[in-house]
Amino acid sequence: MRVFNFSAGPAALPEPVLRQAAAEMLDWHGSGMGVMEMSHRGPEFIAIHAEAVALLRELLAVPANYRVLFMQGGGLGENAIVPLHLLGRNPRADFVVTGAWSKKSFREAQRYGSISLAADAAVDGRYRGIPPASAWKLDRAAAYVHICTNETIDGVEYFFTPDTGAVPLVADASSHLLSRPMDVSKYGLIFGGAQKNIGPAGLTIVIVREDLLGQAHALCPSAFEYRTVAEHESMYNTPPTYAIYIAGLVFKWLAAQGGLAGMEARNIEKADLLYRAIDATGFYTNSVAPDCRSRMNVPFYLHDERLNAPFLKGAEERGMVQLKGHRSVGGMRASIYNAMPLAGVQALVAWMREFEKAHG
Amino acid sequence: MRVFNFSAGPAALPEPVLRQAAAEMLDWHGSGMGVMEMSHRGPEFIAIHAEAVALLRELLAVPANYRVLFMQGGGLGENAIVPLHLLGRNPRADFVVTGAWSKKSFREAQRYGSISLAADAAVDGRYRGIPPASAWKLDRAAAYVHICTNETIDGVEYFFTPDTGAVPLVADASSHLLSRPMDVSKYGLIFGGAQKNIGPAGLTIVIVREDLLGQAHALCPSAFEYRTVAEHESMYNTPPTYAIYIAGLVFKWLAAQGGLAGMEARNIEKADLLYRAIDATGFYTNSVAPDCRSRMNVPFYLHDERLNAPFLKGAEERGMVQLKGHRSVGGMRASIYNAMPLAGVQALVAWMREFEKAHG
Repeated sequence: MRVFNFSAGPAALPEPVLRQAAAEMLDWHGSGMGVMEMSHRGPEFIAIHAEAVALLRELLAVPANYRVLFMQGGGLGENAIVPLHLLGRNPRADFVVTGAWSKKSFREAQRYGSISLAADAAVDGRYRGIPPASAWKLDRAAAYVHICTNETIDGVEYFFTPDTGAVPLVADASSHLLSRPMDVSKYGLIFGGAQKNIGPAGLTIVIVREDLLGQAHALCPSAFEYRTVAEHESMYNTPPTYAIYIAGLVFKWLAAQGGLAGMEARNIEKADLLYRAIDATGFYTNSVAPDCRSRMNVPFYLHDERLNAPFLKGAEERGMVQLKGHRSVGGMRASIYNAMPLAGVQALVAWMREFEKAHG
Repeated sequence: MRVFNFSAGPAALPEPVLRQAAAEMLDWHGSGMGVMEMSHRGPEFIAIHAEAVALLRELLAVPANYRVLFMQGGGLGENAIVPLHLLGRNPRADFVVTGAWSKKSFREAQRYGSISLAADAAVDGRYRGIPPASAWKLDRAAAYVHICTNETIDGVEYFFTPDTGAVPLVADASSHLLSRPMDVSKYGLIFGGAQKNIGPAGLTIVIVREDLLGQAHALCPSAFEYRTVAEHESMYNTPPTYAIYIAGLVFKWLAAQGGLAGMEARNIEKADLLYRAIDATGFYTNSVAPDCRSRMNVPFYLHDERLNAPFLKGAEERGMVQLKGHRSVGGMRASIYNAMPLAGVQALVAWMREFEKAHG
């Protein structure tokens, strides 16, 4: 019945999480109500919330001097909320553009300060690599440096953490957060929409070093002010309670998979299998530099564009959906987040081989 | 198994909605995926979204020159987002304070413009009525007039629509939106968090007259800019897809109840029953003026505060939860939104009588 869903997000969720959510929909743990119906001030939801925060801190080994905030507005919201906070005292920031999302962040930030392009990976308008950090034009007096650690459209992922010295590093990690361990201490702020590896759309995770709180621009809406959100344990406004509950279930599932190290091993296995299949012949291509090929989002092209439609049609007939590439770049894209089982990638690779034989 | 949940929000949802959501959790309409997992750009979710918008427009009879936006950030978010939009050309706005929420809105707006208190209903710090519109000190050159049409903490509801002439009327209708018909054409903008009568927390409804779009302050985050959101059919950033789906199921349930007129009749019956029980003897009191007693949130006090704990304990034992009043005002509060069945209010009234006999 279930398909293999290669959507870039919102994306597949672990089946055990969905089964538990369905079973608890009308009655959570004998409370006589579903989680969606609970007051965010009641003891049941406060316990759900506290457990989710604790699990996330444990999974990512978040240091004690960082706050974990559950917010709303998604990555695009943070594109404004981050500069509204960090440019309050110093209007200069450096951006490294390695794909469509960091480009969007760069543009939005320009409304809030004096923003420099420290590096731009575009070649002929396409993104296929990450310029070495040694080549970035960094301003030592900048308020922060922004990077997008995984670009969903271009399939470009950071496998190194740039050293920005005393300047806080801000990462939009929306599309690979919790897919592998991450040294949080090397970042000033990490944000991400939940709808890739974490839970439902509408929940935004912000992990911020405490010394960066309290610098917000006077016009930053209170509901999005990090310090206010932190002081109220993410309950200044009513939080997206159901999304937090689902995220908590995903965190438990992740812990049962061996945590982020266990997850990373599985994700490497899936990604390697798929990239090997792409590289095997000239029928399929992915031109991202090998050292930054995303393990989460794998764009690829058929050697003849006229084959796109039959490839997608055959995939759908075999229970594989959402393989069409982003409209801005065309081709195919397989998003293989945490919840995508190895069997899904194996099925895709089998279909790629079968299709190639028929059309090669 | 299910309790009667009198929470002020997030609040009880109709059981048929929860049952359908549970049944469709892993597979929506044979798509092989749950709604939470769907790409917001896929045909399945686009259909879900379009139907939800259409149903909401039909239920509220939204005129053609108004846009319906599904946003994030809740009512507290809108407290900043509204002035960030409407004060772009003219910094003056009038606020009418009739309870804790309009007071919060008034304070947040002061960060964005020159805000006047057109009327303040507070008497000894408490809110028990709405000053007649004829007594409001309205500025004919203001950019807008803000009211909160139902105050959840104080239990004060508007049963008239003030005439503000050419000045747009903005209503925070979070806690009674869809509980009864509303003449949208009399408002410039109506907003509300979903977590009372509509669906899960994390979805914000904005209904805005088209001529008010496009006036946003230069620093308004793009993700919250009404024109941008409208131009992208609420999909500029990834919308809270699951919350929109649940809201759509609630809208269908509402239509099956006879629409908002049918719902209003039931809500009047429930509220009348409860207020009659409160007024019957001096054991319970509610001091809100009769012409603005909220049909949604019914605060009341026991004549002796020492009886609060046993009253709440007995209610819980009888399957009635979340009756404790807001911490700022004490006492009791019964929130009886659309999804609270008459049987829930009957059970509460029976318990009130029983308790009074035992302690009267």
